Amino acid sequence: MTAAARRSRLVAALADRDLAGLFVTNLVNVRYLTGFTGSNGAILVPVEGEPVFLTDGRYRDQAAAELPDVEHVITRDLLGGMAERTAPGTYGIESHTMSVDAHARLAELAPALTLRGAGRVVESLREVKDDVEVAALRRACEISTRALQTVIEGRLVGRTERDVARELEGTMLDLGAEAVAFDTILASGPNTAIPHHSPTDRVLAAGDLLKADFGARVDGYHADCTRTVVLGRADAWQREVYAAVQHSQAAGVELLREGVEVAASDAAARASLESSGWLEAFTTGLGHGVGLEIHEDPFIAGSHTGKLTSRTVLTMEPGIYVPGRGGVRIEDTVLVTAGAPEVLTTMTKDLLEIG
Amino acid sequence: MTAAARRSRLVAALADRDLAGLFVTNLVNVRYLTGFTGSNGAILVPVEGEPVFLTDGRYRDQAAAELPDVEHVITRDLLGGMAERTAPGTYGIESHTMSVDAHARLAELAPALTLRGAGRVVESLREVKDDVEVAALRRACEISTRALQTVIEGRLVGRTERDVARELEGTMLDLGAEAVAFDTILASGPNTAIPHHSPTDRVLAAGDLLKADFGARVDGYHADCTRTVVLGRADAWQREVYAAVQHSQAAGVELLREGVEVAASDAAARASLESSGWLEAFTTGLGHGVGLEIHEDPFIAGSHTGKLTSRTVLTMEPGIYVPGRGGVRIEDTVLVTAGAPEVLTTMTKDLLEIG
Repeated sequence: MTAAARRSRLVAALADRDLAGLFVTNLVNVRYLTGFTGSNGAILVPVEGEPVFLTDGRYRDQAAAELPDVEHVITRDLLGGMAERTAPGTYGIESHTMSVDAHARLAELAPALTLRGAGRVVESLREVKDDVEVAALRRACEISTRALQTVIEGRLVGRTERDVARELEGTMLDLGAEAVAFDTILASGPNTAIPHHSPTDRVLAAGDLLKADFGARVDGYHADCTRTVVLGRADAWQREVYAAVQHSQAAGVELLREGVEVAASDAAARASLESSGWLEAFTTGLGHGVGLEIHEDPFIAGSHTGKLTSRTVLTMEPGIYVPGRGGVRIEDTVLVTAGAPEVLTTMTKDLLEIG
Repeated sequence: MTAAARRSRLVAALADRDLAGLFVTNLVNVRYLTGFTGSNGAILVPVEGEPVFLTDGRYRDQAAAELPDVEHVITRDLLGGMAERTAPGTYGIESHTMSVDAHARLAELAPALTLRGAGRVVESLREVKDDVEVAALRRACEISTRALQTVIEGRLVGRTERDVARELEGTMLDLGAEAVAFDTILASGPNTAIPHHSPTDRVLAAGDLLKADFGARVDGYHADCTRTVVLGRADAWQREVYAAVQHSQAAGVELLREGVEVAASDAAARASLESSGWLEAFTTGLGHGVGLEIHEDPFIAGSHTGKLTSRTVLTMEPGIYVPGRGGVRIEDTVLVTAGAPEVLTTMTKDLLEIG
């Protein structure tokens, strides 16, 4: 789908809400609707008439290259530039991200307009990925899988968490990632009990659990993958915990299907942990949408009301965390379809005993 | 200065504004006032009584370690948790970053409070760095300088921009940076004319200008450095442009002194470019504060009213950009003192002809 087609979907959504247009100021949403990859820009999308994109002088040439089909205005005052180009009416603002001060200024600049919070209207469109987006996510997941496979083929015992994390990140870049999707979580031994652990100088030892939560970014799209392996032979406790997480994760993934309640996969993954006796050791969320942001709508939670839609991409990431001892997390990036969920993270989830 | 001392300065600033307290929701400001390095947190700072820090369950242990001296509340609802702990009165909000929706929710949760936009009150405190901050910035600048020196000692011609940028980033990490301060801008040949250029697969050639805008991050503090070198012998045009930028940059740095108008350094750097005939080829801003954010108050501009204060840290970064041909930028991170400016970026600014 082209950016123009995405804007058409937005115009339809705005018309449904009786809005004359939307001030799109959230930069991720600007990128989604235009393809613009710079660090400062906005787009005014009216229901009637043509959109206007605005950025500052640093991005004059880039805007011309990335948005050949949209009028663009070079200005340091994005809000002022948009305000000038509105017709009277009720316009939406992205009230979940627009600051109180920006809102006040816009109201002052355009006193003839009625401004109304339009909620997460663009985020809602972004939940359902088009072909271009799925291709980028698929590639990001492939690179992530290949990178981890490469790293665990090498020597690990005796190296630091930080060193292994850097190799993993470097390998993703070597394999074609434009960047890493987020700072790699790489935890070993007792550190695996910390859900969000920054790599340290701890030296990996035989018998350790090793947990890597990482991903590649391709064309702005983020992969999010976690695997936990054992360095050497797994002991009985490690096997038990691993099996419990693996079972829970499979139960959650199984329900990531079109038409199924989002809360159902949450319930299934939790029920599995409850039956194995490990629910209390699970302390994070179960999953989230992923795309132009590493965490985006929809979020998997028991409180989430609503059904899954085909072409939504989500993570499923149960874990068990036992302070002082260790932990296991398994996470895939998954494409929702009308049939079986398509797991984009192609790496095995069997327990790997490395070296 | 400890986080507690920073909070005391904030309390004094709030009392001056007749505020009973501040809802600190901007995460960078939360870090400044608490030392907390997680990704979700807030702090309610009352003028009377003790502050309360709030974060979610993921950061329970981290909060206990990083903020031993502040009461902390574990909750998913930071705004709700803060609202519960206020006494009636007029409280400040960070209206430049708080979203319209968050503001509306807070007003609903705490109907007895009057909420008032408190502007950039914490950002204003952050302009003047304490000893701990200056030490981190100094170290980040040292690492940046050593990394670039290391990289330009090696072979450059025949390698891609992307490859050299990765080596530069990896070298900063090897030298002790916790992360890179921002995605490295590394431009060669005609690409040096683009002020913010993402590294490509262009192969570096003899005779190229090579521009690197990069920095290390240490303890959350960012270095920001740009150097431009010539691969081989510089031609007359390269020498002319380099000398013009070097002169402008020195003129701007010279006025980064306590008690001098911020606008004066802007005027001096521009006057230098005007006298050399290159002012029209300078298309960006001249500099900005740097600290916990890569761009923070104060920003150097002709329109800036106000004088510099000792212990403010700023960049000075004039450039000349000639589309299709090339460009030069020189940028230092500079500590303002009562006397001569202290340039934290210790790398030479003489024109280097490499290899």
